[in-house]
Amino acid sequence: MIRSLLFVPGNRPGLFAKVARVRPDAVVADLEDAVAPAEKPAAREAALDALAAARPGAGLVLVRVNPPGTSWFAADLAAVAEACARGVADGVVLPKYESAAQLQTVRAALPAGATVVVGVESALGVADARSLLAAGPDAAYFGAEDYIADLGGRRTPAGTEALYARSAVGLAARLAGVPAIDEAVVDVRDEEAFRRNATDGRNIGYRGKICIHPSQVVLAHEVFTPTAAEVAEAEAVVEAEAQGVAVINGRMVDAAHVKMAREVLRRTGR
Amino acid sequence: MIRSLLFVPGNRPGLFAKVARVRPDAVVADLEDAVAPAEKPAAREAALDALAAARPGAGLVLVRVNPPGTSWFAADLAAVAEACARGVADGVVLPKYESAAQLQTVRAALPAGATVVVGVESALGVADARSLLAAGPDAAYFGAEDYIADLGGRRTPAGTEALYARSAVGLAARLAGVPAIDEAVVDVRDEEAFRRNATDGRNIGYRGKICIHPSQVVLAHEVFTPTAAEVAEAEAVVEAEAQGVAVINGRMVDAAHVKMAREVLRRTGR
Amino acid sequence: MIRSLLFVPGNRPGLFAKVARVRPDAVVADLEDAVAPAEKPAAREAALDALAAARPGAGLVLVRVNPPGTSWFAADLAAVAEACARGVADGVVLPKYESAAQLQTVRAALPAGATVVVGVESALGVADARSLLAAGPDAAYFGAEDYIADLGGRRTPAGTEALYARSAVGLAARLAGVPAIDEAVVDVRDEEAFRRNATDGRNIGYRGKICIHPSQVVLAHEVFTPTAAEVAEAEAVVEAEAQGVAVINGRMVDAAHVKMAREVLRRTGR
Repeated sequence: MIRSLLFVPGNRPGLFAKVARVRPDAVVADLEDAVAPAEKPAAREAALDALAAARPGAGLVLVRVNPPGTSWFAADLAAVAEACARGVADGVVLPKYESAAQLQTVRAALPAGATVVVGVESALGVADARSLLAAGPDAAYFGAEDYIADLGGRRTPAGTEALYARSAVGLAARLAGVPAIDEAVVDVRDEEAFRRNATDGRNIGYRGKICIHPSQVVLAHEVFTPTAAEVAEAEAVVEAEAQGVAVINGRMVDAAHVKMAREVLRRTGR
Repeated sequence: MIRSLLFVPGNRPGLFAKVARVRPDAVVADLEDAVAPAEKPAAREAALDALAAARPGAGLVLVRVNPPGTSWFAADLAAVAEACARGVADGVVLPKYESAAQLQTVRAALPAGATVVVGVESALGVADARSLLAAGPDAAYFGAEDYIADLGGRRTPAGTEALYARSAVGLAARLAGVPAIDEAVVDVRDEEAFRRNATDGRNIGYRGKICIHPSQVVLAHEVFTPTAAEVAEAEAVVEAEAQGVAVINGRMVDAAHVKMAREVLRRTGR
Repeated sequence: MIRSLLFVPGNRPGLFAKVARVRPDAVVADLEDAVAPAEKPAAREAALDALAAARPGAGLVLVRVNPPGTSWFAADLAAVAEACARGVADGVVLPKYESAAQLQTVRAALPAGATVVVGVESALGVADARSLLAAGPDAAYFGAEDYIADLGGRRTPAGTEALYARSAVGLAARLAGVPAIDEAVVDVRDEEAFRRNATDGRNIGYRGKICIHPSQVVLAHEVFTPTAAEVAEAEAVVEAEAQGVAVINGRMVDAAHVKMAREVLRRTGR
């Protein structure tokens, strides 16, 4: 269950220990967007050394490699595979995911059971999301910034320009049974914008959020964790169904409500 | 022409006669969401007995069966087929429509000429809507509540979370030449919300509305029946085209306007 | 680079010279929607005579033919082909584009190197946009009025009814590497509505705008030409990347930003 997928610049390994305090569900040491080309090899080594020295938190520890097709991809993947084998990382984040063969390459390189989170963040990735996600990654994030950049468009606060793609990726993820992680909110100081955007994402069916600053993790958990009232209602619905009660709180207990109630309880770990 | 598809709980057959007063284009005795599992067999019998005793109104009389894959489906379908053969029902509403084979099964069970309205209301139904509707149901509704529940999302008053799917189903219906019936409005007391939502649906190309309360029928007819002004303009456009007049009311008479004008007149039965 | 695709009624060739003053990137002599059926042959002749007499401006000169399947299509296409061969037109606008075979027919009729702009403006065109645009037109416009008319819907100022299709066509165009030209704004007096609508289009990735009045050309160029500030920022990003600088103006220089910066510079001709 990844409610928060927190990216930390791979070339600032000193941050790894600090971000553990906010208890993200997954920490990602980012070797891609956060690291300039000239620094890539040094950042890779420093990041993996830091992970070996201390695990950043109790959640998943992942490394975002550079995309397939770049000169860094093979060495990044080999380094992460070794880290997984040694137990210092749990898996990989594969950005710009555009063909099922890329996922096969990554799975083949990693130890069995390693986690693979893919990024759907290009025109081709969005257009082919259904077959790409059917190939079976463990989770997928929708990268709105990169997607809109790939279209030559521009991001806006309302985000209408990405609604089609965000909806399409959410649907494709559901069809494949893959948890979907929602787009980043770039302005890390605007908590209300994050809450609003995360709520929109949850309404579409997303299960968690990209976080690009530790302060966003608590907000993501707030939005993507069912509230006590939601849990209580879900329990009532499930119990009503089990006892054959047709109406609860003046509302028909139908299949859709039971399904949503079970989903709520599943997210609380019950 | 189904401007209103009014669902009535199958386990409350006393309502059937009452709803006839609002003259819905189609009445649906609902054996699915409206009926708790323990009550299914009794509700089926009571509903069909009531339909045999008195036809609820002058419009189509349909029965919503439980979905394919449930233990009630076969008996529901057999009962509706018999009711159609006896002339007490006109056809079936098939919920959670997800494969063309389901439609074939239903067509094969019913007398020739029976009406089949399908529900597109799941991730798979929306994703495959184009081929599913090309299989040729008589009409299709978009079930936003169930679709969003299937995604694990949540409904909002604005409905942005379902815009992608609602648009995709409307487009698929047009490609197949199947009339599309728009999502339900759950708050049955909010007339303005219904009008606004129905207007949005009509703007996307929907031809009618799911109604879950008799009071919504008059609102659906209000929105989905062309106004006198619309009819007058449509007549003017069609006449202008017939006489080779290029401009009407200061507006070019082009193919798109003629097409829309014909559609307006068709909806008034002309 | 077509920031403005200005349509001029083919039966009013006197306007051709006038519209040249606003310097549209492309002028289109429209033989389709602007001309009533009875006037089609005379308008064709008058339009092409006028183009032969004087080129309307320094940009592309195109002729919109009537759609494939109409009785005028063959003669329209032959006349445009001849005009292209004589150098008085640069190509054709093919409306209601719905099959790759239509594009092949047009390409085969025109001299090599002639420009073909297609219109995606029907249910089928939108649904098949990915394969239709992969067939390789030089540019494509999205016709929201005709698309919504084809669905039997209605246009609104907010345009939500066309967001799905507008997004799908923009994505399909990007996948095919075909510049996408955005929908028309019908109220030619409302400059703010045009700016807003064009900005939305640019945000989705569109490269230019249909113009149906000369006054809209300057607005289209305003929106679709990068500003001095955008150019300066783009230059800074590209230079930072070349020098291996990782952060510019407090923002990480990542692949998405470099890509957008290059796109901005490309639009200014650099």
